[in-house]
Amino acid sequence: MIYFDNSATTKMYPEALDTYLKVNEKIFGNPSSLHQLGNMAEALLKQSRKQIADLLGVKTDEVFFTSGGTESDNWAIKGTAMEKRAAGKHMIASSVEHPAVTRTMEQLEMLGFEITYLPVNDRGVVSVADLEQALRKDTILVSIMAINNEVGSIQPIKEIGALLEEYPWVHFHVDAVQAAGESNPIIQHPRIDLLSLSAHKFHGPKGVGILYKKHGKRIAPLLTGGGQESGMRSTTENVGGIAAMSKALRMTLEASEENTKQERLIRDKLAAFLSAYEDVHVFSPEDGASHILCFAMKGVRGEVMVHAFENEGIFISTTSACSSKKNDVPYTLGSMGVNPAWSRCAVRISLAGENTEAEAEAFMEHFRTLHKKFKKIQ
Amino acid sequence: MIYFDNSATTKMYPEALDTYLKVNEKIFGNPSSLHQLGNMAEALLKQSRKQIADLLGVKTDEVFFTSGGTESDNWAIKGTAMEKRAAGKHMIASSVEHPAVTRTMEQLEMLGFEITYLPVNDRGVVSVADLEQALRKDTILVSIMAINNEVGSIQPIKEIGALLEEYPWVHFHVDAVQAAGESNPIIQHPRIDLLSLSAHKFHGPKGVGILYKKHGKRIAPLLTGGGQESGMRSTTENVGGIAAMSKALRMTLEASEENTKQERLIRDKLAAFLSAYEDVHVFSPEDGASHILCFAMKGVRGEVMVHAFENEGIFISTTSACSSKKNDVPYTLGSMGVNPAWSRCAVRISLAGENTEAEAEAFMEHFRTLHKKFKKIQ
Ligand SMILES: Cc1ncc(COP(=O)(O)O)c(C=O)c1O
Ligand SMILES: Cc1ncc(COP(=O)(O)O)c(C=O)c1O
Repeated sequence: MIYFDNSATTKMYPEALDTYLKVNEKIFGNPSSLHQLGNMAEALLKQSRKQIADLLGVKTDEVFFTSGGTESDNWAIKGTAMEKRAAGKHMIASSVEHPAVTRTMEQLEMLGFEITYLPVNDRGVVSVADLEQALRKDTILVSIMAINNEVGSIQPIKEIGALLEEYPWVHFHVDAVQAAGESNPIIQHPRIDLLSLSAHKFHGPKGVGILYKKHGKRIAPLLTGGGQESGMRSTTENVGGIAAMSKALRMTLEASEENTKQERLIRDKLAAFLSAYEDVHVFSPEDGASHILCFAMKGVRGEVMVHAFENEGIFISTTSACSSKKNDVPYTLGSMGVNPAWSRCAVRISLAGENTEAEAEAFMEHFRTLHKKFKKIQ
Repeated sequence: MIYFDNSATTKMYPEALDTYLKVNEKIFGNPSSLHQLGNMAEALLKQSRKQIADLLGVKTDEVFFTSGGTESDNWAIKGTAMEKRAAGKHMIASSVEHPAVTRTMEQLEMLGFEITYLPVNDRGVVSVADLEQALRKDTILVSIMAINNEVGSIQPIKEIGALLEEYPWVHFHVDAVQAAGESNPIIQHPRIDLLSLSAHKFHGPKGVGILYKKHGKRIAPLLTGGGQESGMRSTTENVGGIAAMSKALRMTLEASEENTKQERLIRDKLAAFLSAYEDVHVFSPEDGASHILCFAMKGVRGEVMVHAFENEGIFISTTSACSSKKNDVPYTLGSMGVNPAWSRCAVRISLAGENTEAEAEAFMEHFRTLHKKFKKIQ
């Protein structure tokens, strides 16, 4: 089996799974309980928060635990809307954000908020000049993803951060769900106020995520109740899941330089190989993320390609997992101006550090055969 | 060690933990991915949903997975507010709801909603007549918990359900987080539209919960994004956690009759023992839940009692875990009219099926000694 679908989800590190197991066996108390079992759980929670804060280069009171990337995105956006609605109702996002951002903004549109979606170029990248033009006195939020999940384009987060220094009233949120494994620092610029991560994208457990919120920046809570997470996100803390995430993030960051190099090697090799076919198009920009390669073979629908590879024990994806069973046209490719006839044929290879050159060779071998077969049918 | 803090959280069944482990090792795909690994995860998710629906006696499309009791409560309430705000802005709750309900309603009050809190009698129970009086044409939600988490009082859910048959425009939400282990059916009346459960309260994993939503009843999604859970609750599904919860719920319901009997035996024994002390007051009503016993010794603050027992290896709680580290006065006791001088002394014993009569004997033994010691100091 060759698993090339790491942008959809990754396999948990055995060490992280082991942490989850041990915590739930031994440190199962409610962190809010006054007795030792509660205190042990509270101490572990604190330690995990400290480790994650250190890994991100932020303070412990800036790290909040959530149920995943979607909740982090929803909380950042709805929490900003709720907190700052008296100051303004205008928000800006790129047109290639994940649905956890765009659908959330659409929901706010029904409540009277106004959203500006920035276009992207043919490499899937927004322009800082466009953003500057879109900014207004009543803009309360700019939300731009670090790395696009369909094609891997990298947004100019640093430049946007620099621009937003002049717009101190605007919250700046970065969906960094696809960026945890990159060798760059996750928080690329001090102007970032809010940043979302999801553990299962970096070999941690599903159903656990992080929202970084800069000290002093205010958002309303999305989950209210018992007052956990300094009153900002209530619910009995998933101590085992959080400890496992903390371990997975440490392991991911420790290996990120090496992994990124390895992924880039494989990606470039595959990109060169695929580009050589005249009826194949590679959509991922060369300067994109090391772990994502999106391409299409003319006339072969994405799901047909996915199943053809599946029969060979190779798992790839149509461009994003969450749209794959709904037959949606990939939103990123649409925004990049790719013809729907092409984008319906798009598939995504997404890599992790475990993937090997031998796996890439096997992929190429099978592609050669499949390509011939598809050609014959056409 | 004697663990008497099962209302704060329970220890995972080893079988449920094992399920979590196996799923994350073998069926780690994203359920939305088109390939076999995705399909296996999707099939397991479907199977878990079917099992839970069967256990609850409802349809599969009425079961939604969340991150816990707090999210289920927030979603039921905020989702109703958002969906029905044009029809009305009035909501009704008991005055002894969990903060996941009351804080959420308070947040809605800031948005112009109006909340009526029903009083409770000295047994902590609301009156159906009071509810009837409070109902209005613009009432959109009634939220009443099944079992109170501080003293174990049982609310008249069936009678409320019957009353609400005449108010078809009102959503009826039941926070049943403390009721999963009771031998009664969890969904006690067909008029219930929404019902919240949390896995870690019935030996499942932390960070996973259920919202039952009756077919045809509309609420807005709280987490928007990739469109999972029929578009009602987006995020990559926590397949391992959900499968583990499904197993824990089955085991809990299979054992509930026996466990409830056992818990009641222990609770009644302890209640009789404690009531015999003239400076001890038992707050839990006799007809309350089998697993909760709330009491106080005059002049001995709750946290002092908790630590005294902790030194003997017995883990109890001040009345609710989430308020225990914040020095709040227990809200339920306050609503029941208990004098703050007494309620600050309240502690809660909360049982599960594993607890034994021998543990109750040990508790009584230690209480005798502690009582003498406290008397001497006073
Ligand atoms: C860029 C991006 N944002 C947000 C999400 C949502 O993360 P999750 O499914 O963990 O909620 C994903 C993954 O699906 C993603 O790729
Ligand atoms: C009655 C009740 N409702 C809601 C909750 C919240 O559940 P969770 O902490 O799993 O979000 C709890 C437990 O803390 C509870 O006892």
